[in-house]
Amino acid sequence: MKYSNIFGKTKKENKEYDSKNAYLLTKAGFIEQTISGVYKFLPLGIRVLRKIENIIRTEMDKIAQEMLLNVLSSKEVYVKTNRDKIDVLFETKPANLKTDISYFLNPTHEDNITPLVKQYVRSYKNLPVCLYQIQWKFRSELRSKSGLLRCREFYMKDLYSFHKDEKDFYEYYEVVKNSYIKIFNKLGIGESTIIALASGGDFTQNYTHEFQVKCDSGEDLIFYDDINNIYYNKEVTPSKAPAVINSEEIMEYSEVYKPGIIGVEEIAKFLDIPVQKCVKTLLYISDGKPFAVAIRGDYEVNEIKLKKILSSKSIRLATAEEIKNIANTEIGYTGIKGLPKEVKIICDESIENLINFEIGINKTGYHAINVNWERDLKKPNKFYDIKVAKDGDLNPLTNKPYTTFRAVEVGNIFPLGTKFPDAFDFKYIDNNGSSQQIYMGSYGIGVSRLVGVIAELFSDENGLVWPIQVAPYHVHITSLNKSDDDEIINKAKKVYEFLQQNNIEVLLDDRFDTSAGEKFADSDLIGIPYRITISQKNYNLEEIEVKLRKENVTKYMKLEDLVNEIKTNLSKFIE
Amino acid sequence: MKYSNIFGKTKKENKEYDSKNAYLLTKAGFIEQTISGVYKFLPLGIRVLRKIENIIRTEMDKIAQEMLLNVLSSKEVYVKTNRDKIDVLFETKPANLKTDISYFLNPTHEDNITPLVKQYVRSYKNLPVCLYQIQWKFRSELRSKSGLLRCREFYMKDLYSFHKDEKDFYEYYEVVKNSYIKIFNKLGIGESTIIALASGGDFTQNYTHEFQVKCDSGEDLIFYDDINNIYYNKEVTPSKAPAVINSEEIMEYSEVYKPGIIGVEEIAKFLDIPVQKCVKTLLYISDGKPFAVAIRGDYEVNEIKLKKILSSKSIRLATAEEIKNIANTEIGYTGIKGLPKEVKIICDESIENLINFEIGINKTGYHAINVNWERDLKKPNKFYDIKVAKDGDLNPLTNKPYTTFRAVEVGNIFPLGTKFPDAFDFKYIDNNGSSQQIYMGSYGIGVSRLVGVIAELFSDENGLVWPIQVAPYHVHITSLNKSDDDEIINKAKKVYEFLQQNNIEVLLDDRFDTSAGEKFADSDLIGIPYRITISQKNYNLEEIEVKLRKENVTKYMKLEDLVNEIKTNLSKFIE
Repeated sequence: MKYSNIFGKTKKENKEYDSKNAYLLTKAGFIEQTISGVYKFLPLGIRVLRKIENIIRTEMDKIAQEMLLNVLSSKEVYVKTNRDKIDVLFETKPANLKTDISYFLNPTHEDNITPLVKQYVRSYKNLPVCLYQIQWKFRSELRSKSGLLRCREFYMKDLYSFHKDEKDFYEYYEVVKNSYIKIFNKLGIGESTIIALASGGDFTQNYTHEFQVKCDSGEDLIFYDDINNIYYNKEVTPSKAPAVINSEEIMEYSEVYKPGIIGVEEIAKFLDIPVQKCVKTLLYISDGKPFAVAIRGDYEVNEIKLKKILSSKSIRLATAEEIKNIANTEIGYTGIKGLPKEVKIICDESIENLINFEIGINKTGYHAINVNWERDLKKPNKFYDIKVAKDGDLNPLTNKPYTTFRAVEVGNIFPLGTKFPDAFDFKYIDNNGSSQQIYMGSYGIGVSRLVGVIAELFSDENGLVWPIQVAPYHVHITSLNKSDDDEIINKAKKVYEFLQQNNIEVLLDDRFDTSAGEKFADSDLIGIPYRITISQKNYNLEEIEVKLRKENVTKYMKLEDLVNEIKTNLSKFIE
Repeated sequence: MKYSNIFGKTKKENKEYDSKNAYLLTKAGFIEQTISGVYKFLPLGIRVLRKIENIIRTEMDKIAQEMLLNVLSSKEVYVKTNRDKIDVLFETKPANLKTDISYFLNPTHEDNITPLVKQYVRSYKNLPVCLYQIQWKFRSELRSKSGLLRCREFYMKDLYSFHKDEKDFYEYYEVVKNSYIKIFNKLGIGESTIIALASGGDFTQNYTHEFQVKCDSGEDLIFYDDINNIYYNKEVTPSKAPAVINSEEIMEYSEVYKPGIIGVEEIAKFLDIPVQKCVKTLLYISDGKPFAVAIRGDYEVNEIKLKKILSSKSIRLATAEEIKNIANTEIGYTGIKGLPKEVKIICDESIENLINFEIGINKTGYHAINVNWERDLKKPNKFYDIKVAKDGDLNPLTNKPYTTFRAVEVGNIFPLGTKFPDAFDFKYIDNNGSSQQIYMGSYGIGVSRLVGVIAELFSDENGLVWPIQVAPYHVHITSLNKSDDDEIINKAKKVYEFLQQNNIEVLLDDRFDTSAGEKFADSDLIGIPYRITISQKNYNLEEIEVKLRKENVTKYMKLEDLVNEIKTNLSKFIE
């Protein structure tokens, strides 16, 4: 491809973006933002996208069969799986026709693939079924951000598997895990990718696994337990609050009446105490019974941990009316003092060693201050970890702070248990003739997101630095010609043709009205791994001038040797 | 691929579909209908889809650059192009979030690509720009039908080109036309594909070109002018009505009062005369002025022809109120007798030779019967062709009926003039420094539709008969083994491996619990071009038994020769 012809040139000026990938990919002419969270892929961008897609497809074809599911979905299947109220669903209707037609746009495809597979599976002989697709997905994110990392419209590989029992499922789960490791290695991001433990949601008490790439623009926070060499997603990180230094004397208990002060931040400000001295109490309902949860003011309650402690599949916050009935107070004044005896209290360990702290006392308008355990309030026999971990939290095993880093999820593998097959009454007949439940898993990789992730990881102050296996072209020829028909451009074209004949993908900068400096800057910005410079100085030499984008060294080599070097490099990644 | 493993088996029973492609592709396990007009592609189906896609991409890459546009569109761009009220638009919103987010789903991408190209084009040096994509499209069809031929969700190749003048545009238009001819030849449907003339809509007075495939399930009706060797879409076919035999005597003019009888069908029934003896009169408005149109009762008015005759870009039917003002009658009683003089009357030639006919007389509740030219009504000096052609109509050049056939459109090439660039104020600076309008074209090929079209064209009473270049596999091995480890299946596996090692794509029917008859029937239904049978009779022979799906001849040949034959066949279509 000649750069003078390519659609989508580099920009001298670029508007501001909230992430490196959006900024660089837009500036270099790979993508254009359409609306928030929706991008167009220009010719350079789609070449990267397709290469990533093909690397994924090659590995997927070894462990599953490709197919293609629908974008538009009946609402009925989401009602069956009880997912018609999830907040990422887009609803679509004819804009200008009077009709009852109304669909959802699929954000994932469990709801659609399960009834399809049911049509073809009767007996254990038909299992397992492992199907994947690479298809557009849609999520109605309230806020899309970080360029290609969090979009409303995105291209994704999703694999679904159906098994005769949990054992068979978990064997395949390991197969997929290994396939993913291979894919991320082939994409060149293996070293930056870690497997983090995450929550299984309502599907399993076991952890699930997320493939996370260390990345400053990532929206996830990962905690590293260096004793056990385990990475945790923050939602499942076992954590201990760093102690609040309490050098002060024990103060006198008192109650303060000040209506209208709601929430720990406001209370702390009003009382002029650190928020860490406030105890937040929330009332929950589980299986129809109320229970209270107390946690230090600077933490959030982690419902995933809470469910595990209670062995409960569903918990929810009490409504204002329920709070009134249970604790006889308006919302905002619940506390662990003065609750009816039948309300079980679960205290986070962050409040165990507090002194002179603030609590609600279930009296509208009132807060108690300088509360101390045992003197004012019975100290619980046991404290729990029910908090969302945050930066600075201690690893309970070592009492030392975790190493934390921001990351972006590039893949996940997820046990779904029997939820979706059950929703469609999808069972199979085993070899004894009995009807049995089916175990399902889902496994995703964000294909368009990976374009953004790779741009984040492989870039420097001058622009993008593509790994060769996903680069839009292998070689960028910077021809320093002064016209469109001088010795330099003629030599450049010969090199261009030779490389193309040898199946090397080449971008030839043939512009004659552009300065050398501008051409080099564009080449750095676009980030193609090999740059060949053809200039007045070197056009008649036998060896060509080659510079690797990721190194600052210029070397001279024979064209044949360059072809061999590139092919050797590519063969490590492309089958 | 082993047939015992493949997802999506043949069906013994199949529900009824309105088209051969939906019935066969579903029965053979290529696709599954999700909802009306939305299909899932199973592993066999996606292999066909991808092969079609790749043949198209190979040709497109020679004349344009690939990119990928958004599915979700801002509404704003459709408002700018005045297309926000078109009836095929889907509107989409978050189903469960309170927000103002609201998008259209693109049915085509003119509205989105034009502002993108504007960002990168300033001068004549940046033109032409020719970009294509292969992407999902959405149309809110009230009725989807004919399987993959008319879908609400469909996969399409669309190309857009932008030019400095009309001449440059038309040169490229011919390039695309030739590229399309090559594509349809490579897909194996060249012989069945004709180029029909169609309307340029509001964009151009010139004809546009549709690539139409003769097909009984097609929704278009094509008229063939065998004198000039021209195919017309029915909307632009020059047509002459076959004469109504008028052997009767001239009757006495009279007026009938019968209120509430509206429409030619009802009038004809009430009067007990053929509908061909009724003259339908419609009032139109063009540039603020009314005119009347008269046509035989069995024809519909063709507004495309009407616009050409009037040299008017926009005409519309008069409202009930306008009819009252202009003709002093309720709707339904307008006629060519008694209209104000300033209302121009355009008569279709279908009424020129009528005798004893019925007309409206612009008096509410009244119809005139046994009307005759000159005696009752001045005969116009000139009659026109303003009808939608129908089967049986005569070619005006020959006075003989056209040959007509049903067809499905597989591609179109369309001059868009300057409409879309103008809507976005997208102009360029020519080499004299003047601002100039930009000429645009769009060019589509229905990729998923082609799966259906090829299934319609290449099938017989036993099932599908795929051309080798788009077949899901090249060879189907029917192994007549009785267990999963006998001499027959072992031989079949050896053949399977040999062919795969030679890059031949093979489906191996390895089932041991299925009868030979069933296996042969399945093989015919699936329609892979070469069938190898391995049986008790032939498993130890040196040559293998080969049958072509499209012929009824069995031959014996060496495996190496089969490989060569397949590769030679493929090389005709695949580069």
